[in-house]
Amino acid sequence: MAIFRGLSAFPITPADHNGRVETDALGNLLTRLIDASVQSIGLLGSTGTYAYLSRAERERAIKSAAECTGGDVPLIVGVGALRTDEAVALAKDAARFGADALLLAPVSYTPLTEEEVYQHYRAVAGATELPLCIYNNPGTTHFGFSVALLERLAWATNITAVKMPLPADGDVSADLRRLGDALPDGFLIGYSGDWGSAAAMLSGADAWFSVVGGILPEPAMNLTRVAMAGDADATKRIDARFQPLWDLFKQFGSLRVVYAVANALSLTPAQPPRPILPLDVKDQDRVVTALEGLL
Amino acid sequence: MAIFRGLSAFPITPADHNGRVETDALGNLLTRLIDASVQSIGLLGSTGTYAYLSRAERERAIKSAAECTGGDVPLIVGVGALRTDEAVALAKDAARFGADALLLAPVSYTPLTEEEVYQHYRAVAGATELPLCIYNNPGTTHFGFSVALLERLAWATNITAVKMPLPADGDVSADLRRLGDALPDGFLIGYSGDWGSAAAMLSGADAWFSVVGGILPEPAMNLTRVAMAGDADATKRIDARFQPLWDLFKQFGSLRVVYAVANALSLTPAQPPRPILPLDVKDQDRVVTALEGLL
Repeated sequence: MAIFRGLSAFPITPADHNGRVETDALGNLLTRLIDASVQSIGLLGSTGTYAYLSRAERERAIKSAAECTGGDVPLIVGVGALRTDEAVALAKDAARFGADALLLAPVSYTPLTEEEVYQHYRAVAGATELPLCIYNNPGTTHFGFSVALLERLAWATNITAVKMPLPADGDVSADLRRLGDALPDGFLIGYSGDWGSAAAMLSGADAWFSVVGGILPEPAMNLTRVAMAGDADATKRIDARFQPLWDLFKQFGSLRVVYAVANALSLTPAQPPRPILPLDVKDQDRVVTALEGLL
Repeated sequence: MAIFRGLSAFPITPADHNGRVETDALGNLLTRLIDASVQSIGLLGSTGTYAYLSRAERERAIKSAAECTGGDVPLIVGVGALRTDEAVALAKDAARFGADALLLAPVSYTPLTEEEVYQHYRAVAGATELPLCIYNNPGTTHFGFSVALLERLAWATNITAVKMPLPADGDVSADLRRLGDALPDGFLIGYSGDWGSAAAMLSGADAWFSVVGGILPEPAMNLTRVAMAGDADATKRIDARFQPLWDLFKQFGSLRVVYAVANALSLTPAQPPRPILPLDVKDQDRVVTALEGLL
């Protein structure tokens, strides 16, 4: 599925302190992504704080985004929820309101078994005909997919891609080989973890599921183009400009930093949902400095 | 606060597959706890699947429980939620509908900082006048409290107790000394992790926050009485009867096992919320065998 190739840009979902989505601000963010010709938009990902938004607000965000893209850029919508019936309902909502594809994380409270995650995915994937990308993000869901489970899921009709975390040992090439050997032909493999994604693309990853792409789409597209073309020198040069931002992502978590970027660029005054706190003023200054090399 | 002393029994919250609480079945479970004279009831804890129930269903469960206890047994109500405003609303609901105390876990999706957790607790504790117990359960929330953070929170007016996980090194005595040295006089320290709680009570813990207490209150009260009285021999003897059940708790997670116990005792046919799956039939048989030494 071409929809899961290239730069998938994950914007924040600006909302007020009651969790009501500010659709005008969201529209402004999305317009930047469309103008930069990102390959897809990852709405309501972790960066889009899907876990913190009600079903009704997620509906409003999807409708607003579908109206904004008008079908020009594929819309991937996160449909994760703790309960299987809720995730199924969110998947149906997403299909009804204009999503082109789904992204599903195995959100957990009680730690889940492999069989539980398998059944959960089959239920959600079977709820619509949209292609579905497995969201493997142990840092937030506390569930790590084994290659065997990915393989099992990859045989389901419309489960067509996986969004991987960077491997702990840093060796994306080996990770891609291991996954490629196990997964069916045509099953796409992308990475998140912005600081390692250029290397992942150089190693042959199909997609970059990107936080920075959702807020700084032009620089992220520049990096994507050279990395996807296999130009190691240009990739290294452009990636170096992002380094101060990667350092902040690693220190504070990309979510807090990307809100500070959105604030610094006057794109929205929105803040992350409490309990998540905005960065301190001195760290906001570091964000502004980090942006200087990129704008 | 005496409310956080002794056996705090955490029942499941029977619900149908749509997440609608079955208040009659809940009432039957609670009556068993009252009849066994447990020191408190921990409604809507992790075992009570609070994370999987809507605000409306949590309201129904609290109202039903308050009616059932009639004030005879203190009712501690879990009010955890990902969003601070939701946890505040749940705390106010709990106070309005009959809770005697609150239990708050730092539920997370985006990993939280200490300051974020601090602010979250202050907001929820400040929302009502009920005493609040910190629910330190890194296995589900993926946030572990430092002693320094517990100390900071313990100075808030109505934060009066902590529910601790068993220490990784197994040395509850050392854990209790370290906490006792740091925390204010009168701040109560209890443990969950049923298989280590008898040892914790022998070491001087104030409370046992118990999964098994919510489904087998008589045997759990027997264990509590001898352990709290410091009778090491009797504690060892009674704890040994639970060993087959502890083994199952450790292997499958206590939640899945306790549903199988409830089913085996014909207390309710309810199953855990999907994606959580019931035990296989052969493992259900092991549960029945484990019960033989206890009934």
